[in-house]
Amino acid sequence: MRVLVLSSGGIDSSTALAMAVSKFGNENVIALSVSYGQKHLKELEASEAVAKHYNVEHLSTDLTKIFEYSDSSLLKHSTEEIPKTSYEEQINETKGEKPVSTYVPFRNGILLSVAAGIALSKECDVIYYGIHKDDAAGSAYPDCSVEFNDAMGRAIYEGSGKQLKIEAPFVKMNKAEIVKKGLELGVPYELTWSCYEGGDKPCGVCGTCRDRARAFKENGVVDLLADD
Amino acid sequence: MRVLVLSSGGIDSSTALAMAVSKFGNENVIALSVSYGQKHLKELEASEAVAKHYNVEHLSTDLTKIFEYSDSSLLKHSTEEIPKTSYEEQINETKGEKPVSTYVPFRNGILLSVAAGIALSKECDVIYYGIHKDDAAGSAYPDCSVEFNDAMGRAIYEGSGKQLKIEAPFVKMNKAEIVKKGLELGVPYELTWSCYEGGDKPCGVCGTCRDRARAFKENGVVDLLADD
Repeated sequence: MRVLVLSSGGIDSSTALAMAVSKFGNENVIALSVSYGQKHLKELEASEAVAKHYNVEHLSTDLTKIFEYSDSSLLKHSTEEIPKTSYEEQINETKGEKPVSTYVPFRNGILLSVAAGIALSKECDVIYYGIHKDDAAGSAYPDCSVEFNDAMGRAIYEGSGKQLKIEAPFVKMNKAEIVKKGLELGVPYELTWSCYEGGDKPCGVCGTCRDRARAFKENGVVDLLADD
Repeated sequence: MRVLVLSSGGIDSSTALAMAVSKFGNENVIALSVSYGQKHLKELEASEAVAKHYNVEHLSTDLTKIFEYSDSSLLKHSTEEIPKTSYEEQINETKGEKPVSTYVPFRNGILLSVAAGIALSKECDVIYYGIHKDDAAGSAYPDCSVEFNDAMGRAIYEGSGKQLKIEAPFVKMNKAEIVKKGLELGVPYELTWSCYEGGDKPCGVCGTCRDRARAFKENGVVDLLADD
């Protein structure tokens, strides 16, 4: 069994990578990271560092041009600022009726499709990716939902001639549960990167910094990256 | 209602474009063409000419790098030759057990996903694309099947926060039926391009040249492009 892991360099996908390596061996795992114009492009260095740690092949590709028409606040060219509030507060504002401002239009569908094209060429049987329950809550990121994952999995299976599947091991877990799993597996979280601002240090106030801090706190451990 | 049409410059997608224009008006239609390393890159000039004919906005994007690992015979960098036989003969060879050699891994899934990202940014409500029954037969192109189309449509609907749908008006029609529809709509087929070889003139022997010739013949009309 050969696995391609969509690897952003964050906590969720790095844990997915660790799971794949522990299950199938590093020689059967490929990590794929994608630049798409994100402000926190430095997450890709983290993705590379984690792949190096696990001694797996690391591929990267650039889809920046696709998103040139989007005004998502996650994108470098956007004039929108990344919210400094928690996701709960952001969802209160959107009333759960539309995605949050850092949603990048159909990003996960695009990443999975591109990963499928590459996985088929590199003779992989399955794609792992790190979506989780928190991100889907309140319609924040609709491309993290169970419904999206199920449909996309069927599309990739059918459209590949039944050669390729996807697996979202954390689709029903929250970030604290992912970190718990990752701590058991010994994931080097100090190598990962989450903050959407992409500065020298995590900003500590964007939605993903807050989520990360809570996940570590709930597991009673110190986040070496934040405390650096 | 605003429509983004995936436009390759061939018969099927040009007819889909004509349908969209006739239904919603040219000001509500955007054509999107994609280079992905295909040998017949000149189909994109055809896409542009058809968009110009209908006076619709024409966008293009380049996904060539994604397919660098693929050895599909449709791709310029491949050492594989495009088969000179009909699809029936090609399917006889594959026994309908795997895609034909011109299948590009998960191409339609990738094109639709990318189109979805752009459509959401350009405030479109629906994506039209030109897959049809002949291409799905015998597993030749699994990313043209009813099953793929249904799942991909659900993935895009769910993953976009229920903002975007896809429509494949010809998914249950053959090419002759598409040409019949296009002739009624006055599609300028002389501007379109089908041949996979991408030479000065259509080769006449690749699967898609044969399909095109048969579709015109069954409608009792002359293909001005082939007879040029």
